[in-house]
Amino acid sequence: MSVNDEFLVAAQSLLGPRGLTRDADLITPWLTDWRGRFHGAAIAMASPADTNELAGLMQLCSHHRVPVVPQGGNSGMSGGATPDGSGTALLLSLRRMNAIRSVDVAPREAVCEAGVVLQTLHDAAAAQGLRFPLTLGGKGSATVGGLIATNAGGTQVLRHGSMRAQVLGLEAVLADGRVFDALTPLKKDNRGFDLKQLMIGSEGTLGIVTAATLRLQPALADRVVLWAGIDSIRDARKLLLHVQNLAEDILEGFEVLPEHSLDAVLALLPAARAPLNGRHRWHALIELAADNAGAAALPGRAEELLTSAFEAGLLEDATIAANEAQAEAFWTIRDEISPAERALGPAMQHDISVPVAAMADFVTEAVAAVEARYEGTTAIAFGHLGDGNVHFHVLAPKGADRAPWEASQGKEISSFVHDLVTQWGGSISAEHGIGQLKRDELGRLGHPVQLDMMRAVKAALDPLGLLNPGKLVPPCG
Amino acid sequence: MSVNDEFLVAAQSLLGPRGLTRDADLITPWLTDWRGRFHGAAIAMASPADTNELAGLMQLCSHHRVPVVPQGGNSGMSGGATPDGSGTALLLSLRRMNAIRSVDVAPREAVCEAGVVLQTLHDAAAAQGLRFPLTLGGKGSATVGGLIATNAGGTQVLRHGSMRAQVLGLEAVLADGRVFDALTPLKKDNRGFDLKQLMIGSEGTLGIVTAATLRLQPALADRVVLWAGIDSIRDARKLLLHVQNLAEDILEGFEVLPEHSLDAVLALLPAARAPLNGRHRWHALIELAADNAGAAALPGRAEELLTSAFEAGLLEDATIAANEAQAEAFWTIRDEISPAERALGPAMQHDISVPVAAMADFVTEAVAAVEARYEGTTAIAFGHLGDGNVHFHVLAPKGADRAPWEASQGKEISSFVHDLVTQWGGSISAEHGIGQLKRDELGRLGHPVQLDMMRAVKAALDPLGLLNPGKLVPPCG
Repeated sequence: MSVNDEFLVAAQSLLGPRGLTRDADLITPWLTDWRGRFHGAAIAMASPADTNELAGLMQLCSHHRVPVVPQGGNSGMSGGATPDGSGTALLLSLRRMNAIRSVDVAPREAVCEAGVVLQTLHDAAAAQGLRFPLTLGGKGSATVGGLIATNAGGTQVLRHGSMRAQVLGLEAVLADGRVFDALTPLKKDNRGFDLKQLMIGSEGTLGIVTAATLRLQPALADRVVLWAGIDSIRDARKLLLHVQNLAEDILEGFEVLPEHSLDAVLALLPAARAPLNGRHRWHALIELAADNAGAAALPGRAEELLTSAFEAGLLEDATIAANEAQAEAFWTIRDEISPAERALGPAMQHDISVPVAAMADFVTEAVAAVEARYEGTTAIAFGHLGDGNVHFHVLAPKGADRAPWEASQGKEISSFVHDLVTQWGGSISAEHGIGQLKRDELGRLGHPVQLDMMRAVKAALDPLGLLNPGKLVPPCG
Repeated sequence: MSVNDEFLVAAQSLLGPRGLTRDADLITPWLTDWRGRFHGAAIAMASPADTNELAGLMQLCSHHRVPVVPQGGNSGMSGGATPDGSGTALLLSLRRMNAIRSVDVAPREAVCEAGVVLQTLHDAAAAQGLRFPLTLGGKGSATVGGLIATNAGGTQVLRHGSMRAQVLGLEAVLADGRVFDALTPLKKDNRGFDLKQLMIGSEGTLGIVTAATLRLQPALADRVVLWAGIDSIRDARKLLLHVQNLAEDILEGFEVLPEHSLDAVLALLPAARAPLNGRHRWHALIELAADNAGAAALPGRAEELLTSAFEAGLLEDATIAANEAQAEAFWTIRDEISPAERALGPAMQHDISVPVAAMADFVTEAVAAVEARYEGTTAIAFGHLGDGNVHFHVLAPKGADRAPWEASQGKEISSFVHDLVTQWGGSISAEHGIGQLKRDELGRLGHPVQLDMMRAVKAALDPLGLLNPGKLVPPCG
């Protein structure tokens, strides 16, 4: 038998028929990433039932030197869960490990296995009068393990932080099959390096997240959604500071979009209506929300906030959603920007961040710089102003053919944008991660000392290089 | 010249007369730890003026294989900043690097060098109408670098988190003199491992913190301090949950103490008065606080909270401090527990945590177990109930001689307490760190996988073992 055959026999024996398959019909759907940009191959797909099985499997992988590509809901944006084309790697699905072990009301904690789908967690928390305050487009497929491995973000980071801030405890299987058990949540623990922080956001390159203890929040009792028309993104920043000064305790979201994006959504969705009558160069979508303790005061505080912002000259016009249906309609506009902009033609999309205080200036300068340098392009920025994180899209000149434009000018534009972001002290990946999509850019633009530290830590915890090879960590030189 | 002489000549040339001294009068005060339990020796004391000088110094240390013991205010509790007795290490003071580079009001951030004293930071933030929400007994000497290296805690962790939660950006010098620069604060950044998390709480064993960008909070406009008499620590836990349900947004502190500790403070401080008239087995000190936006509602909410807690049968008696002087007097009782208990005779002190939900049960069981097993001892627990962190003191039987008791029965008791904590899934160091004091206990009780991971990361980032040798990381087997 070849080494691979020996491994497969042993893995089959360990995992049983449900735990290992080589059936192409079952595997193929998981070998292409969410956006359809990366395709890979695998010797088999493993679906262990629990942490012990996975630990045994990793011992086998380690013994036979079989690389492993962990995968949750396969809804990542950077190809981090897609194997390369060599077919040497084992595709490791965590989806069978999907138990919510507990939801505890008093400490407000949930213990979830890696394969729990985000929407399922939302529902389980809601059933106990609680909520898990992180959500994103892929909530119907994204899993807890993947959210942790990628330190997922979303629109609620402003108030609650990204996935890292929700993780109170963590369990992971290491490259050699040993189990890192830090699942018990301790609010204070100074027994050395906080190793679970290393696992969070490591995209499966240091260990495979198998379970986590997650922080829950009280359920929201009420929300108020506002829409404001604003003259400039600098004014939007001032408005954000105004809201933070007066109502930070109830500020659940603060998103901005330019006129261009609103028009694009209105063109895409015939049923959508502009929230305001006049035209404004910028728009802000603001959500205020409170639990039971603060719900009664919420409408009054929202009114006061708008009045004071008007008086301070921070906005041109504004409206408060009259009911939940209108609130949803406002959010639909925000959520449909990406597809609406894509419908206009080819575009390069960049998930970037700079220091929050610099974001307004950065957007103003970057839009002008890109449009001046690349004639006919349109640059737009929208998203999480309060987090210093915008999605920066550059639309191709009218009439450009998608594939050739993306491969030539589009690629050059992305490098240009990433250079700019780096000059501003920002990040070329604010929330989508590095995966295989941005590994070379990270190698090109990352701080050499930090890249060396990452390589050193990677070599220390995965000396055989079996965990998600080719992802995240740029190779030397 | 010997290797050491060569090193000293080069270091003197690099740092100048202010930057390096071998004068015993200047060095000796820094060779004994805060509590006077550890004494060390050093070949010299270096005090670099800036990050570049320190980087050059570490290149020299690396070249000459000179170990380095970083030190901030020397107010640590675990001997983490005291060299061993060999005299081979360089004592590295960060106290000259004490500039507050900026305090920015809009993003509420301060950029501080490592040597900035906590009280100085408090004052600088207050001057801008802001505050830095972490404080502790040693605030007049503890430095930002030391607070980060030890992930310091205090009484405000309940609301604001420990030092880790305050660090938005970080700069550190590595063992080989390279500079890890992650000082620019990005609210969202998914470019791989969050390496600054590794530095926080690593006690100078992975790198030397030189500067940090810290999160500030709005200044408090008002506070209400309550004192409650309670029948049991389980009721105290129920009261905590009650307060969290109704007033989590203004809950600044929740400390508990047993009758024994109150009596000890009243005995130590003749001017102190019991906040309540009757006797109660347990007491809770609760601070509610709000910034400008919430100050007006504060007194009313405090009254409501007490009324509802009475009605729910959660407390026996309670009082609200009538003025700021009385509020301070309540806090003085809390702050003087440690000296008051020490004045009663020899005691073993343990800085421990267990999951918050388990704390009341743990204390009840642990007190009974210790007192049953060690005749004549008195076990008491007080502190941060809301963090699952109590200071667990075991007083010697009456008449015991301090030194022999501590060395024999005292030591055995500490092992017993640490065993119990470990069985409950807790930590043998909640906030004071490991240093040299608890390194062997960590080696004895730490999870073998986690200890191996720590050793692997340590070897990866400090392959020559020059950074704070003998601290934190237990040696193999």
